[in-house]
Amino acid sequence: MMSRAVYPGSFDPVTNGHLDIIERASRLFDEVVVAVAYNEAKSGLFTAEERVRLLQANVGCHPNVTVTHFHGLLVDFVRQSGAGVIVRGLRAISDFEFEFQMALMNRKLASEVETIFLMPAEECTYLSSRIVKEIARLGGEVTSFVPHSVALALREKFSR
Amino acid sequence: MMSRAVYPGSFDPVTNGHLDIIERASRLFDEVVVAVAYNEAKSGLFTAEERVRLLQANVGCHPNVTVTHFHGLLVDFVRQSGAGVIVRGLRAISDFEFEFQMALMNRKLASEVETIFLMPAEECTYLSSRIVKEIARLGGEVTSFVPHSVALALREKFSR
Amino acid sequence: MMSRAVYPGSFDPVTNGHLDIIERASRLFDEVVVAVAYNEAKSGLFTAEERVRLLQANVGCHPNVTVTHFHGLLVDFVRQSGAGVIVRGLRAISDFEFEFQMALMNRKLASEVETIFLMPAEECTYLSSRIVKEIARLGGEVTSFVPHSVALALREKFSR
Amino acid sequence: MMSRAVYPGSFDPVTNGHLDIIERASRLFDEVVVAVAYNEAKSGLFTAEERVRLLQANVGCHPNVTVTHFHGLLVDFVRQSGAGVIVRGLRAISDFEFEFQMALMNRKLASEVETIFLMPAEECTYLSSRIVKEIARLGGEVTSFVPHSVALALREKFSR
Amino acid sequence: MMSRAVYPGSFDPVTNGHLDIIERASRLFDEVVVAVAYNEAKSGLFTAEERVRLLQANVGCHPNVTVTHFHGLLVDFVRQSGAGVIVRGLRAISDFEFEFQMALMNRKLASEVETIFLMPAEECTYLSSRIVKEIARLGGEVTSFVPHSVALALREKFSR
Amino acid sequence: MMSRAVYPGSFDPVTNGHLDIIERASRLFDEVVVAVAYNEAKSGLFTAEERVRLLQANVGCHPNVTVTHFHGLLVDFVRQSGAGVIVRGLRAISDFEFEFQMALMNRKLASEVETIFLMPAEECTYLSSRIVKEIARLGGEVTSFVPHSVALALREKFSR
Repeated sequence: MMSRAVYPGSFDPVTNGHLDIIERASRLFDEVVVAVAYNEAKSGLFTAEERVRLLQANVGCHPNVTVTHFHGLLVDFVRQSGAGVIVRGLRAISDFEFEFQMALMNRKLASEVETIFLMPAEECTYLSSRIVKEIARLGGEVTSFVPHSVALALREKFSR
Repeated sequence: MMSRAVYPGSFDPVTNGHLDIIERASRLFDEVVVAVAYNEAKSGLFTAEERVRLLQANVGCHPNVTVTHFHGLLVDFVRQSGAGVIVRGLRAISDFEFEFQMALMNRKLASEVETIFLMPAEECTYLSSRIVKEIARLGGEVTSFVPHSVALALREKFSR
Repeated sequence: MMSRAVYPGSFDPVTNGHLDIIERASRLFDEVVVAVAYNEAKSGLFTAEERVRLLQANVGCHPNVTVTHFHGLLVDFVRQSGAGVIVRGLRAISDFEFEFQMALMNRKLASEVETIFLMPAEECTYLSSRIVKEIARLGGEVTSFVPHSVALALREKFSR
Repeated sequence: MMSRAVYPGSFDPVTNGHLDIIERASRLFDEVVVAVAYNEAKSGLFTAEERVRLLQANVGCHPNVTVTHFHGLLVDFVRQSGAGVIVRGLRAISDFEFEFQMALMNRKLASEVETIFLMPAEECTYLSSRIVKEIARLGGEVTSFVPHSVALALREKFSR
Repeated sequence: MMSRAVYPGSFDPVTNGHLDIIERASRLFDEVVVAVAYNEAKSGLFTAEERVRLLQANVGCHPNVTVTHFHGLLVDFVRQSGAGVIVRGLRAISDFEFEFQMALMNRKLASEVETIFLMPAEECTYLSSRIVKEIARLGGEVTSFVPHSVALALREKFSR
Repeated sequence: MMSRAVYPGSFDPVTNGHLDIIERASRLFDEVVVAVAYNEAKSGLFTAEERVRLLQANVGCHPNVTVTHFHGLLVDFVRQSGAGVIVRGLRAISDFEFEFQMALMNRKLASEVETIFLMPAEECTYLSSRIVKEIARLGGEVTSFVPHSVALALREKFSR
């Protein structure tokens, strides 16, 4: 019945926590669109294209997962994609508050779109792109937190 | 792809918050099994049969929703039902902690079953069976919190 | 303009945290009615009359504070008292959730009654009747947590 | 007895959640001073004067509400205003923490000023100026979250 | 310098989460006293003696860990043990609140005793005796949550 | 047994809350290294050297406490210091989440280093460098929140 879901995020860069949610979503839906939210105002470490490429390099094993990026409102993108569901991972308390606020706002803007929350694997509970970037910036080893290609890309960014 | 989900709970009795989640789930899945968890140790206000009947009286408009009760472990029931998904509503913080604990336990017991969380309508955020029973016990009006048939059943219970 | 407020609770028994809130409320309102919620179902350690007496023994310095007990719904009592405001103290997170749930329910039942939250003094933030009773039951010293008369009453209860 | 309260905030811009709190406060106090905290260091989207004007355009129905802006410490402004109470709205958990921190600090700086917390209407629980600005910036419809005049002002800001 | 710590709890029964904390504490202190708090009022599933025995059977590899039980106030026991530190594991938010309340109370009762909090391994974050007992009661497999001897003891208890 | 601990932070500037934790740590460990984490990317109000000096001026009474600053990863610094323990103060909920995330990351990066959490005195629970700086910037009195030398240093910074 339900067939297409959007998994939005900034993915700057993708972590093992994101990949865990993508895998869970790919088992629940016919198609999963991983959508990099690109905000010109906050440029981030990686460009939208780099984030998409790093995602694509790591979701190849899931044939029903595609990766793209979008501008503008998430609900507009979801509608244009013909999806009825937004997938979000839920980690800790601060996430919870913010995620609920976003989900309620999105429901007000597009009541036909449902947001569902998935729980990442325990070992990803406290993982975030921000903290991974901080560790990489300080020269720390991030290979337990991100896929190999992302660890390489981080090293390259910070060695410049 | 995904077709059968179990929505478990004690439903003692069903509230508008539960019905909101059932409606959302019925739009996401081919079949939704609402499953009254019956615990002989904690008898509750309504019997398992009464809870099932009050649910059935209020989900008639959703042809893909069935109601039943079960003993024993939730994951065993989910497997026997041929379902791959557990649906839970997420309200406030205390919910969040408990729900995550249960979901992680269930994942340990049956890793092939995914728990997804749905967000109830705002006006149901702070609704609970416990508080509805307390108001009814004290003679208060509960018709904004539960369907008509449940309000009647509560009045009958407490007028005895 | 605003003149009468109800400060409800179980006060089993009153602690320094409750007295701190009573004092703050007495500076904000012309009259404060401290109202012991008595629930036949949960008898508690002290009877409703004992709780009222222990409160009265400790609010004498505030001429605009009266103490009473009530059965039934809080909002019915508030209306009968001619009050327009319910006062509640807010301590920690778990309080917050429960207090909001109650306040929203009360607003649904009586929209003309406003609930306001006061913040107790820091040193009362983690004080609760439950924990004070537990310490007294085990023979511990509770004089930093409750007034003298309550410490005596606790000692008497547990020495029986 | 209690007659003048200050409701401070950045109001950049005012939302329906702020207006809900203002209305509640105007029923509790003889006079309510809505005070735009202006911080030269964080300029915001609207100037202090614009924020005041958007507030004034929407509180006209409450004759006991005035709007102004202030520099410097909140407690100094409260004292100069001859007010004894600070009003704050409490939404979600993260609010709760921050609000308590601010209120305790203000109590240390001016112990005679009491902070009271009001609970906004349920439908405003997850509303914030920040998220409203984000939606408007992306071209989304914000008329369910802010008054008409604010929606127009947002459109104008972002169409430049 | 610091040499003796008490790790108190109800341990009804011990879980892998408790054992993880015991191991961490045994690396930090010269001696660790694991202390089963026995409360005649709440009898629990296992007797104090059974809980001690199940703990002893699983801490043998740490020569500096002893197990005992106590009645009365924790701080009295800590003083009698000649310990200066209470060790507690911190899991989720609800823990946090309760643990802080207890620790502040204990500090008021015995200011020379310091409470330190340790973080359990991620895979134990959501583990609790209560939920393990519930799973065992329903016939579920608990061997990933408790040591082998505890799993056997639980099976025996519930097969009666 | 356990002898050296690192208490890291930004200390921009040190508050009474930090000093309370330092005193507690100095009673628990043979040596405590207070380590100012210096991040070139976020310059802060005080330089690393100023922060170290303000700390040193206020820990003189604890002969086993030294103060220094470090670049790079915390766990690398801890290892180089020959310490086995990281000390952190735990205040409110938002702290809790962030502290756990950091502690889990550090455990992944250096599993032999244990993070322990201490609870500050109640009156420091809601104290933070950020809020102290804000009050000082607005000309408020901060002498109840920071030591005298820090109050002077703040006045000097903001009078420029």
